[in-house]
Amino acid sequence: MIPQQQLRAFTEQIFRAIGCSDTDARLAADVLVSADLRGVDSHGVARLPGYVRLYDKQRINPQPNIRVVHESPSTAVVDGDRGLGLVVGPWAMRVAIEKARVAGTGWVAVRNSNHFGIAGYHALLAAEHDMIGQAMTHAAPLVAPTFALEKMLGTNPIAVAVPAATEPTFLADFASTAVAYGKLEILQRKGQDIPTGWAQDADGQPTNDANAIRNGGALLPLGTDREHGSHKGYGLGAVVDIFSGVLSGANYGPWVPPFATAGFMEANEGVGVGTGHFFGAMRIDAFRPADEFKANMDIWIQRFRQARAMPGQRVLIPGDPERLMEAERSANGIPVAEPVLASLHELGERFGVTL
Amino acid sequence: MIPQQQLRAFTEQIFRAIGCSDTDARLAADVLVSADLRGVDSHGVARLPGYVRLYDKQRINPQPNIRVVHESPSTAVVDGDRGLGLVVGPWAMRVAIEKARVAGTGWVAVRNSNHFGIAGYHALLAAEHDMIGQAMTHAAPLVAPTFALEKMLGTNPIAVAVPAATEPTFLADFASTAVAYGKLEILQRKGQDIPTGWAQDADGQPTNDANAIRNGGALLPLGTDREHGSHKGYGLGAVVDIFSGVLSGANYGPWVPPFATAGFMEANEGVGVGTGHFFGAMRIDAFRPADEFKANMDIWIQRFRQARAMPGQRVLIPGDPERLMEAERSANGIPVAEPVLASLHELGERFGVTL
Repeated sequence: MIPQQQLRAFTEQIFRAIGCSDTDARLAADVLVSADLRGVDSHGVARLPGYVRLYDKQRINPQPNIRVVHESPSTAVVDGDRGLGLVVGPWAMRVAIEKARVAGTGWVAVRNSNHFGIAGYHALLAAEHDMIGQAMTHAAPLVAPTFALEKMLGTNPIAVAVPAATEPTFLADFASTAVAYGKLEILQRKGQDIPTGWAQDADGQPTNDANAIRNGGALLPLGTDREHGSHKGYGLGAVVDIFSGVLSGANYGPWVPPFATAGFMEANEGVGVGTGHFFGAMRIDAFRPADEFKANMDIWIQRFRQARAMPGQRVLIPGDPERLMEAERSANGIPVAEPVLASLHELGERFGVTL
Repeated sequence: MIPQQQLRAFTEQIFRAIGCSDTDARLAADVLVSADLRGVDSHGVARLPGYVRLYDKQRINPQPNIRVVHESPSTAVVDGDRGLGLVVGPWAMRVAIEKARVAGTGWVAVRNSNHFGIAGYHALLAAEHDMIGQAMTHAAPLVAPTFALEKMLGTNPIAVAVPAATEPTFLADFASTAVAYGKLEILQRKGQDIPTGWAQDADGQPTNDANAIRNGGALLPLGTDREHGSHKGYGLGAVVDIFSGVLSGANYGPWVPPFATAGFMEANEGVGVGTGHFFGAMRIDAFRPADEFKANMDIWIQRFRQARAMPGQRVLIPGDPERLMEAERSANGIPVAEPVLASLHELGERFGVTL
C-alpha cells in the first residue's frame, strides 16, 4: 500500500523531470492518481512509463501551446500541440464550461493530443459547476466491428457526470466494448483465460486466450455478437471515433496512433493530427432551475437504489463502485502491483526521483 | 405487399379522424411509414392502433399547443402539451436546428409528450442541414438494471446521424438493450423461444421464454450480464432517461407512462409530466468546414467498408441495413403482418376509412 500523497508527489516529479511546468505536472499527476484511487488501476500510475516512452519518442510535447483554432458561441476545436492528454483534456473541458456559462452548453473537439487518462475525471470537472459533463475519447484500434476480422476502433470510452443534491454525483464511465482492455491485461499477466464473449481470434471465432489480441484477434464491441447487439457497441464506438477524430481533425479509425504501453503497434498517422477527444458541458439551469433538477436526481438515485434486487445483491448507481473504492484507498493507500512498482522504481532511478 | 403511398394515405386519414390538423397528420404518417420502409416494423403502422388507444384514453391531445417553456442561446425545454410524439419530436428538433444556426449547437429536452416513433427519423432531420443530429427517448419500464429484479428503464434508444459527402448518411440508431422489444414480440407472436441473453425471468435467471416480460421478468441491458458489460448498457439507458426525463421535467425511471400497445401496464405518473425526449443538433462548420468534414466522413465510411471481414460477411456502416430495406420497400411495397392488417382494417371501419 502506498499512500496517495506519496504516489502523487512521485508522479508529479517525473512529469516535471520530462519538462512539464509545475502546474501541468500537478494536474497530470492528479488525473493519473485519481484513476488509481477509483480502482481503475490500468489507467493510473501503471501508465506513467508509457507517457515517458511517448516523450522519448517525441510524441509528447511537455510545454505545449494549447489553443482554440475554431469556435462558435457553443463550440470550439482545440489543438493540443502534442501535449499530454492529461493536461489538454482539462484545458479543453474548461473551454466547454466557459462556453456553457454564456451559451447554455459548450462542446469542444480536440485534436493533436494523446491518451487523456480516465474519461470520468474530465466529465466530473463540469459537474462541480452545476453542469452535466461529458467526455469521450478514441484510442488505438483494438476492436473489430461486427463481422470484421480487422481491428478498426479503440475501446472508445464515454463518461457522463450528472450532479445531484444530497446524493453523490451520477457518473457513468465506460468503454464501448464488452470489457476494457485493462481487465484483459490483468488476466494476461496472471496467465489466465478470459471469459467467452470478450474477444475473438484471428479467424473471428470466440476465444478464451487472453493473448488473442496480440495474435491477430480483436476485442469485441459491447454486446459481444450480432444476436446480442454487438452492432450497437460498434455504433457507439464509431460515434465516439467520429466526434473525437473526424469533427476535430485528428486521426480516426485504424489510423489513431497507439498509446505505446503495449509496444506492439507503431504510430501510423495519415488522415489527421494525433489523437482526439470530445467534451461537453451543459448548464443545468439552461434547462430548468438547478435545485429543482438536483432534487429530482436525488429521487432518481434513491428510487434506483431501492429497486428489488437479486438475492445478496443490490442495484448500484453508476459511479458507486469507484466512489467506494476512492474512500477506501484515500484512507488506506493504493495497492501497486509488483511489476508496476518495478517500472516506477526504474523511472525513479533514471530521473533521480525516489518513490 | 402494400404500396407505401397507400399505407401513408390511410395512416394520415386516421390521424385526421382523431382530430389532427392536415399538416400534423401528414407528418405523423410520415414518421410511422418511414419505420415500415426502413424495416423497423415494430415502430411503424403496427403502432397506429396504439396511438388511437392513447387518444381514446385522453392521453393524446390531437391539437396540442407545443411551446418552448425555458431557453438559453443553445438550449430549450419544450412542453409537448400531450401531443403525438410523432409531431412533438420534429417540432423540437426544428428548435434545436434553429438554435444551432445561431449558437453552433442546439439541445432540446422535451416533456409532456408521447411515443415518438423511431429515433433515427428525428436525428436525420438535422443531417439535411449539414448538422450532426442526435435523438433519444425514454420509454415505459421493461428493463432491469444490472442485479435488479425490477423493471426500471425503457429500451431507451439513441440515434446519431452524421452526414457524409458522396457516401450516404451514417445513422446509428439503437436501443440500449440487448434487443429491441419489437424483436422479442415477433418471437412471442410466432410462439418461439428467445435466445439466451435477451431477458431474465422473475427470479433474475436467464430465460428463453418470449413471454417472460409479462410474467415478472425483464429485458436485459446491452451487454446482457455483468461479466459482458450489462452495467454499461444500464448506464447508457440511465443517461437517456435522465436527459429525456429529469432535464425536461417529464417522468423518469419506473414512472415513465406506458405506450399502451401491450396493455399490461397502467399509467402511473407522479414525478413529472408525461414522456420525455432529448434532441441535439451540432452545426458541422461550428467545428470545421463542412466540406472538409464530409470528405473525411467519406474516407471513414469507405475504410470501414473495406475492413477485412469474416467469410461470407462484410462490415456494414450503421444505417446500411435500413437504407437497403428502404430502397427495396419503396419499390416493392411494405409487407404488413396479418394481425396488424386486421387491426388496421378494424380502425378503418371505425373511422370510415378504406385501406
